[in-house]
Amino acid sequence: MELISSNKSHGGTQGVYSHLSEATGTEMTFSVFVPPHEDGQVLPVLWYLSGLTCTHANVTEKGEYRAACAEHGIVFVAPDTSPRGADVPDADDEYDFGKGAGFYLDATKEPWSTHYRMRSYVEDELPALIARSFPVDMERQAITGHSMGGHGALTIGLRNPERFRSISAFSPIVAPIQSPWGEKAFSRYLGDDQSTWAQYDAVSLIEGGARPAALLVDQGTADDFLSEQLKTGLLALACRKAGIDAAIRMQEGYDHSYFFISTFMAEHVAWHARHLKG
Amino acid sequence: MELISSNKSHGGTQGVYSHLSEATGTEMTFSVFVPPHEDGQVLPVLWYLSGLTCTHANVTEKGEYRAACAEHGIVFVAPDTSPRGADVPDADDEYDFGKGAGFYLDATKEPWSTHYRMRSYVEDELPALIARSFPVDMERQAITGHSMGGHGALTIGLRNPERFRSISAFSPIVAPIQSPWGEKAFSRYLGDDQSTWAQYDAVSLIEGGARPAALLVDQGTADDFLSEQLKTGLLALACRKAGIDAAIRMQEGYDHSYFFISTFMAEHVAWHARHLKG
Repeated sequence: MELISSNKSHGGTQGVYSHLSEATGTEMTFSVFVPPHEDGQVLPVLWYLSGLTCTHANVTEKGEYRAACAEHGIVFVAPDTSPRGADVPDADDEYDFGKGAGFYLDATKEPWSTHYRMRSYVEDELPALIARSFPVDMERQAITGHSMGGHGALTIGLRNPERFRSISAFSPIVAPIQSPWGEKAFSRYLGDDQSTWAQYDAVSLIEGGARPAALLVDQGTADDFLSEQLKTGLLALACRKAGIDAAIRMQEGYDHSYFFISTFMAEHVAWHARHLKG
Repeated sequence: MELISSNKSHGGTQGVYSHLSEATGTEMTFSVFVPPHEDGQVLPVLWYLSGLTCTHANVTEKGEYRAACAEHGIVFVAPDTSPRGADVPDADDEYDFGKGAGFYLDATKEPWSTHYRMRSYVEDELPALIARSFPVDMERQAITGHSMGGHGALTIGLRNPERFRSISAFSPIVAPIQSPWGEKAFSRYLGDDQSTWAQYDAVSLIEGGARPAALLVDQGTADDFLSEQLKTGLLALACRKAGIDAAIRMQEGYDHSYFFISTFMAEHVAWHARHLKG
């Protein structure tokens, strides 16, 4: 693991790191904020998965999470959204597929299957590295994310309920198999056999019996992607049918940007803190 | 005035605007955050002046001021740092002179004197536009800034004590005429007659009798520019000699970045709020 940068912030340390990933076969970059803490103390971890076109940097610069993480004593980890590098196949001029658009799945179709293995990376490899390298208590983890990363947080969280005490999301793609972004990505990463898609679809996972320990979603009503891509209502419906007591909040006048995310970030961190420390 | 973008954030509106400036003879871009407020209510204004290489965007994205401004009911205005555009002369490959480095002065030497008039722009023209266009109470203004913008905040604040109830700065250049950045910029913008430089030098202004209504400075001890360029100690000395009760705080381990600024931004906003509302 190589240190790219380290800056003192809000009493803690905002670091950016890179390492050679086995899962993706590429150099991967991620950021970790470690709040002020006592020597020897281990802290709960909040994972943040980013959206289309993003790297670790967007939330690290614009997310406004450090004050809340410092207050509540939570380590904040932000991975990249796809493999990167000259060897990694990409889709030219497509912001919603290829680099920056890994969709937190393990691709099974060539040429994507060699490097596009963000599920294994975020579910297995990076947690092991974080556990080895930072003062964390991996028994206390929570996950959140934005848009495509909200989809990642929901699906990874729902598939691993023993690992995550709470799941939240900002404007998530709740049912990618019913959205143009998801249909496009899944058909190319996973192929046309849609039976392999459901494991990457939050609504399908809930319909199949998955249950989150705790679930909070914020969605702006002025989000241009709401009706075609995000479809928050499908998650609300699935939760209602499944008897899941989720907080799914429509936030009046907010859009899809970090101006929205940063508004509710402190609330999400505090909500996760209650579950992580309870 | 043209609206570039508008995003709801922290209950208020983060806008970015452009207009044709008489002072600079160019299109100028700035950002304004208007917090939630009642119809007809007017709010105090906090000006934020940015540092070398920056535009309005750096603090708008990374400054973490909106939560505090929403809490305290303060309008936050962030101008650009220089004129821009194809017609504006620039210094190639120099980050510390020309575009992005206006130093909040009115240049008197050609070719800079036509467009590089950031003093007139920030002191006169933009306040008039803000007063006409936003729900502000111009009787209640405060000013802050970072690095070159800290220099701007200090000098504009000290020259206009009747206008600013409080002045703060993050890692300001406190005595540009004693720093390589300032010497380079002033000699080219203003010429070699150093008698014209003192009006743009905070330490000289204080030595000449200027008094701030209230003054707060935060400076990181791990800031690479501290000893050569910023020289915080010269401000502390000038304040002590002048009997100015300033809070000049050395912040252990912090650097020159927005990771530092954002750490103390909420405190600065709250401190200004006390002066603006007292």
